[in-house]
Amino acid sequence: MANPVRVTVWNEFRHEQKDEKIGATYPNGIHGAIAEGLNAIDGIEATTATLDEPEHGLTEEVVAGTDVFVWWGHMAHGDVDDAIVDRVHKRILGGAGLIVLHSGHYSKIFRRLMGTTCSLKWREADERERLWVVAPGHPIVEGIGPYIELDQEEMYGEHFDIPEPDNLIFVSWFQGGEVFRSGAVYYRGAGKVFYFRPGHETYTTYFNEEIRKVIGNAARWAAPVSREMPVYGNSDPIEDLSWYDRKHAITEGFGPTT
Amino acid sequence: MANPVRVTVWNEFRHEQKDEKIGATYPNGIHGAIAEGLNAIDGIEATTATLDEPEHGLTEEVVAGTDVFVWWGHMAHGDVDDAIVDRVHKRILGGAGLIVLHSGHYSKIFRRLMGTTCSLKWREADERERLWVVAPGHPIVEGIGPYIELDQEEMYGEHFDIPEPDNLIFVSWFQGGEVFRSGAVYYRGAGKVFYFRPGHETYTTYFNEEIRKVIGNAARWAAPVSREMPVYGNSDPIEDLSWYDRKHAITEGFGPTT
Amino acid sequence: MANPVRVTVWNEFRHEQKDEKIGATYPNGIHGAIAEGLNAIDGIEATTATLDEPEHGLTEEVVAGTDVFVWWGHMAHGDVDDAIVDRVHKRILGGAGLIVLHSGHYSKIFRRLMGTTCSLKWREADERERLWVVAPGHPIVEGIGPYIELDQEEMYGEHFDIPEPDNLIFVSWFQGGEVFRSGAVYYRGAGKVFYFRPGHETYTTYFNEEIRKVIGNAARWAAPVSREMPVYGNSDPIEDLSWYDRKHAITEGFGPTT
Amino acid sequence: MANPVRVTVWNEFRHEQKDEKIGATYPNGIHGAIAEGLNAIDGIEATTATLDEPEHGLTEEVVAGTDVFVWWGHMAHGDVDDAIVDRVHKRILGGAGLIVLHSGHYSKIFRRLMGTTCSLKWREADERERLWVVAPGHPIVEGIGPYIELDQEEMYGEHFDIPEPDNLIFVSWFQGGEVFRSGAVYYRGAGKVFYFRPGHETYTTYFNEEIRKVIGNAARWAAPVSREMPVYGNSDPIEDLSWYDRKHAITEGFGPTT
Repeated sequence: MANPVRVTVWNEFRHEQKDEKIGATYPNGIHGAIAEGLNAIDGIEATTATLDEPEHGLTEEVVAGTDVFVWWGHMAHGDVDDAIVDRVHKRILGGAGLIVLHSGHYSKIFRRLMGTTCSLKWREADERERLWVVAPGHPIVEGIGPYIELDQEEMYGEHFDIPEPDNLIFVSWFQGGEVFRSGAVYYRGAGKVFYFRPGHETYTTYFNEEIRKVIGNAARWAAPVSREMPVYGNSDPIEDLSWYDRKHAITEGFGPTT
Repeated sequence: MANPVRVTVWNEFRHEQKDEKIGATYPNGIHGAIAEGLNAIDGIEATTATLDEPEHGLTEEVVAGTDVFVWWGHMAHGDVDDAIVDRVHKRILGGAGLIVLHSGHYSKIFRRLMGTTCSLKWREADERERLWVVAPGHPIVEGIGPYIELDQEEMYGEHFDIPEPDNLIFVSWFQGGEVFRSGAVYYRGAGKVFYFRPGHETYTTYFNEEIRKVIGNAARWAAPVSREMPVYGNSDPIEDLSWYDRKHAITEGFGPTT
Repeated sequence: MANPVRVTVWNEFRHEQKDEKIGATYPNGIHGAIAEGLNAIDGIEATTATLDEPEHGLTEEVVAGTDVFVWWGHMAHGDVDDAIVDRVHKRILGGAGLIVLHSGHYSKIFRRLMGTTCSLKWREADERERLWVVAPGHPIVEGIGPYIELDQEEMYGEHFDIPEPDNLIFVSWFQGGEVFRSGAVYYRGAGKVFYFRPGHETYTTYFNEEIRKVIGNAARWAAPVSREMPVYGNSDPIEDLSWYDRKHAITEGFGPTT
Repeated sequence: MANPVRVTVWNEFRHEQKDEKIGATYPNGIHGAIAEGLNAIDGIEATTATLDEPEHGLTEEVVAGTDVFVWWGHMAHGDVDDAIVDRVHKRILGGAGLIVLHSGHYSKIFRRLMGTTCSLKWREADERERLWVVAPGHPIVEGIGPYIELDQEEMYGEHFDIPEPDNLIFVSWFQGGEVFRSGAVYYRGAGKVFYFRPGHETYTTYFNEEIRKVIGNAARWAAPVSREMPVYGNSDPIEDLSWYDRKHAITEGFGPTT
């Protein structure tokens, strides 16, 4: 508890550089805005990494030193090296957290963790979105009211091809007639995954205080649990199982071991 | 499989008798409309029962002979005798199905099975409802497209105070800005429960062919499984457990321990 | 986070007074042993309440000031006043946590929250129990290895008639041939519930350091989330919904529909 | 319902050919034994496919004509062509069922659908296994008693690195001290997945009548649901949404918003 949660905010960082308007919306990049929000929270230390850095900024050292990854990507999912995805995947199954944002639904890491296509409906029409809380006691909604309202967002609609969440946290309403499971929680391996829908690159969503609060809550929720991790593979009889040994001895070879 | 699913459609049957307009909408009662829809489906045999019949129409014989209950109630939940609720509860935990419709969310039987308040938001404003399918492979949506649209319905909104569903089947969009988990599946005891939102008494919802299809699919899904049910209580060592007996004999101890 | 989690450990406290041997095992009562374990943990403040105190020690003040209840009962479930159960039930749905231990599976509060019989198989035979962790990343197992082993415990066996857990944390192995879902997590209302199996009154289980660690982890996990809680009932159009008002004005109809 | 469920039983079919004893246990291969069991059930038509056939016996035609796949593999998971795995994966997400047996937990198709390592503990020691039913109302346990007992099986133990099942059906007890979530159900895309543990190649498990019953029940449960499947991608406003068009016309704005 004394140790801060070390978050690495990963961003593709292409839209901001290619499109002037998006660049003006996020002058420090989407990653910069998200990290700024996280660093304003006690007990969280956020750094950033982007696609065009060496190893996408996700070196062995960075990955090993990350408690929770935040992932934003959109137009360049295919440019992410499979070997780096392997590395992050392994770290998550080993206990780290992952917060997948918006168009990150199509990232390699999220699709791999879900096992489904992660497809959805979408429309860019500056629609109003209302994210209704459906899990009122979950730590991810601490400090959040009955819903979060965003004046303008891209629409994402069902069917969203994801596994049934372990807990469903938010359901979004969109002005044009669609709904979306916009906050979904998964346990995978010893790690935790939170998908959170908002954050199209053309809107100021990641400066929104409630959105920042949710991402911060999720980072704390997704932090690794400190414990001896499971051992897999061929399993010897457990040494101190006295009744077991006794039984073995008496029966001369019968029983679970031989 | 050869045996038909025996459905008992239970209805409070008060609105239809007290309000002329509702009576005209459902001349044979809400139960009559639902049973008509069910009886048009191969392999289903539906009968009806109503609040003001002796024992609410749910005698021991009726309950014992019911595979799946459909439940519609609204203004008179409090008039339902606790002893009858006990009887239905026991039958459901013993393997029968329960389909709770619309304002039945506040019925004694549903609240008892859920353990929560089952509260929600509501508004009567002739709003458009769109029930989006979020579980595309579930048998309850057989024959149903991406969504069901109802021109006019009462709004029910989140937060809906229910346990996290075992599977979430539908999420509703409402014109006025709300969403609702409108189709939710639960296993309880050896029985199955499906909550399905639509069906305010002032609309013709239960004549809608898609709504009827969903209720019919749910009746088949919720039918009891034929098997020897679990035995509870003090458990003797299982007789044919040879290694166990041998061990017992050798150690002269009590039971399984030595 | 700065505020401690206020735990009320409730115990029936009958076995310890009626049976000399059990009294010697738990000289300060089962509640005393559990509270002692909790109070040794930073950030937790535990007090106790027992059946034979006025209002079972669960006055309005105590209940309102409790973040997490721990519940142990066995021979006197029927003596618990329904009005007190109502009070605790309401507080849990409003956000408090509940940790139900061992024979508390048959308590009124747990059965009411589950909606099922909560029946199970059992046998008193001083059997070895091994609680295997099946959710390696859940905060409840922080600091716990692959399994917890108890040399002697009462056997509880499947089928355990509970709803499918939101997350299953432990599965127990028993020497005599049974298994049991021995750690199970539920969200209910705005509250959280953890059922944890071990702790028969004749064993020293609640002095076991690992068992104490699990109960402490669970208390932290189950603590209320600080937020504005949902409002239920008739819902007016939300005031700042400008598009909605505009539409309303144009169509001269009521509310959201035209 | 009139149409039979078309099952393709896929088997690696290497152990039976390389090891004389295993070949004698399964003279028609593991696939032959499983298909024989399935073909004895009304409404199921099973055929087989094996690794060393062209395209592993899973041509486009076979895959398109399969409602439910059964998958057994062990020593040659790596020899399965990724392109064939793609084909089967796509078919499952599109609605087909998949029953993964025993060491198939490490198959490419199962790991891809789960997104986790699917690792576990194991031991070959001719141990007794007891599969306890924990979901008494699920159609997969139709006709099955409180548990299935197998005199000798390979041990598989927790932690089993899979996602939390949508429904947990069986939990196994093993003589040597381990437990295992041995029957687990998942919805993925429009398809359904059932993992079922028993069936080590050295035992006669697939001739066991109860094991055959479970596999048959699972085949019926996993059969595709007949319906129009979801459409993904860029979504136009829905044509018959009259209020939507009206609003659009009035505001002269783009799309759904004003």
